[in-house]
Amino acid sequence: MDIYLDNAATTFPKPEPVINAVTDCMKNGAINAGRGAYPLARKADRLIEATRNSVASLLNYKDGQVLLSASATLALNQVLLGINWNYGDIIYTTSLEHNSVSRVLRHLQDTLGVKIITIPINAKTLEYDLEALKQMFNKIQPKAVVMTHVSNVCGLITPVKTIAEMARAYEAIVVVDGAQGGPLLPLEGVQEDVDFYIFSGHKTFYGPFGIAGFVTNGKVPLTPIIFGGTGSHSELLSMPEELPFRHEVGSSNIVATAGLYAACGWLQETGIANIREHERDLLKRTVEGLAEYRDVKMFISNNLENHLGTLSFTVEGYTAQEVGMILSQEFRISTRTGLHCAPLAHEFLGTLPHGTVRIGYGFFNTKEDVESLINAVGIIIDS
Amino acid sequence: MDIYLDNAATTFPKPEPVINAVTDCMKNGAINAGRGAYPLARKADRLIEATRNSVASLLNYKDGQVLLSASATLALNQVLLGINWNYGDIIYTTSLEHNSVSRVLRHLQDTLGVKIITIPINAKTLEYDLEALKQMFNKIQPKAVVMTHVSNVCGLITPVKTIAEMARAYEAIVVVDGAQGGPLLPLEGVQEDVDFYIFSGHKTFYGPFGIAGFVTNGKVPLTPIIFGGTGSHSELLSMPEELPFRHEVGSSNIVATAGLYAACGWLQETGIANIREHERDLLKRTVEGLAEYRDVKMFISNNLENHLGTLSFTVEGYTAQEVGMILSQEFRISTRTGLHCAPLAHEFLGTLPHGTVRIGYGFFNTKEDVESLINAVGIIIDS
Repeated sequence: MDIYLDNAATTFPKPEPVINAVTDCMKNGAINAGRGAYPLARKADRLIEATRNSVASLLNYKDGQVLLSASATLALNQVLLGINWNYGDIIYTTSLEHNSVSRVLRHLQDTLGVKIITIPINAKTLEYDLEALKQMFNKIQPKAVVMTHVSNVCGLITPVKTIAEMARAYEAIVVVDGAQGGPLLPLEGVQEDVDFYIFSGHKTFYGPFGIAGFVTNGKVPLTPIIFGGTGSHSELLSMPEELPFRHEVGSSNIVATAGLYAACGWLQETGIANIREHERDLLKRTVEGLAEYRDVKMFISNNLENHLGTLSFTVEGYTAQEVGMILSQEFRISTRTGLHCAPLAHEFLGTLPHGTVRIGYGFFNTKEDVESLINAVGIIIDS
Repeated sequence: MDIYLDNAATTFPKPEPVINAVTDCMKNGAINAGRGAYPLARKADRLIEATRNSVASLLNYKDGQVLLSASATLALNQVLLGINWNYGDIIYTTSLEHNSVSRVLRHLQDTLGVKIITIPINAKTLEYDLEALKQMFNKIQPKAVVMTHVSNVCGLITPVKTIAEMARAYEAIVVVDGAQGGPLLPLEGVQEDVDFYIFSGHKTFYGPFGIAGFVTNGKVPLTPIIFGGTGSHSELLSMPEELPFRHEVGSSNIVATAGLYAACGWLQETGIANIREHERDLLKRTVEGLAEYRDVKMFISNNLENHLGTLSFTVEGYTAQEVGMILSQEFRISTRTGLHCAPLAHEFLGTLPHGTVRIGYGFFNTKEDVESLINAVGIIIDS
């Protein structure tokens, strides 16, 4: 079995209860939910509601509304394209966004004339310059702030709570892309300040593909961007006003929902903090090990508490693709190389055009995996 | 075990190979595809390509491009919102569309000023009046024709090939919603005339939720409606021009894809015609049986060859919901009652506001299921 270090793309393997829930639902419950007049359909409805509650609870949105979607990308589009923008609206965002945010913002810029301003980060220390941001907000007031919770390229954690509080003073809309963060970094008391928190079922939630969504405090209305059947209010030819129907269209993916529900249970049982600290421990040891090699450049801040278990690095004399290929072919270590769908992040880090080698740790990685990686990189450098 | 007659909502149970493929992929291959530098990621890429080929082959689009999406609803939105409409464009459509079509068309009407014209069907005989349509096309030329392949309410098959050929004379764009049809009704030589054929993995393909899409002959360009990472051309901040990347955003649902691929194999092995004729045989016997009851009204044409295995009926003196509830609670028969997300179809059939009881047969239903239903309806009427 190869060593899987691509958990930032999707966590793998999946916890046993998640696999079992998906299999069981495929066998015994893969029917269409939505106010069905028969027991299996009602059971599906209850499962969906229970999953909403679990997700809201894990993300600390006690009174939040969870809207389910097929992917975090789709959920981000539903939020960002659904907000009622006006020409010239100012949107602050980070340099570390995934294309699922930056391509949507670019589209808004091109079609609606919103203005994009970049939140300042020190490219050397990877520290957010919150003092400068405060002055920028004061000078050019934000209509919205759109920020990743954790960079999918370098694992850097955005101080979302602080920035969200600053933005709230201007009544700005706050959107957080939590695909790489929630629920591993639970947001404390942030429901008030973060209007939309997007989550991905198959990443840090340890669930299956096909289920994701966003949780909202309900303050900012969204216009639907996808139209279709809602299993309710079927008589209307426009999308119903009522949530979640307004934004949840088509057949519910009950199998993936069953997996996500099981994942929520597994997360609670295993303990969020245990998972987070395990991933971070692996990261710390990796940084320590790779720091021994002069030819390795890592893209990290001084304080590793500002990172989750994702690390980008380059090796002098090799492109990222070459390193990734050797790691895979000679050492059976699976990483993800290139731009990681985040060109602006690589522009910011100065790693264009080849990008970096990305290590993404998950809960099922071991200390041995880390040592194997460190040794392999050492051998590549010495060869 | 209850008798499941809601296959028009989703086919259930799923074939054994589909369940096994999903389980196996959850355990051994649930990683993120997309030009990965390691074996599992490359294997995922190959599976996706093989699935495209299987789908194209089953739908008789030999040179068609298959674009994958999370649901048929999303695929319909990508097609219908992605076409470059102009104010006043004439769109012909049927009275039998699902809300995944009619709500999108309504949105286009409200926002872009397209005009919607209804293709004439005789409400008593459920026959398409193609002669009248020909004259209508001649008088008001179509820019596009958007039609369901099979009504999700009454199982009526649209003569899509004939209408598509008529539309082609006007160089109209032809879109077919095949969620209830393909691949059970393979389109012969239709690739030339149907520009977009939308399919659903979890319905007549007998695959899992979470995978669907459309096949296109490539003649009509689409503007992307969803923006995000494409695993390729990551350096661009606009969506790449190249297919399928232009419209496939976010992580591929490789688990659902594995299920769909297995479903395609199962369909080929079982035989499309066998599945279709089994469903139709069950329908014919149902119609025969229910015709004995004066209090039952069925919404069918004289020629049952014009239907697939879906039937709508009402019972004098009962709302559809009452009948569905009794069938479920007293006879353990699962049906779907109400409007089936197709209010225009029920308006057309004259079954507003309560709708109908819908029976949807699948390959795994038996003659005994049919007799149970017929008997149950008889008992309800006699009670």
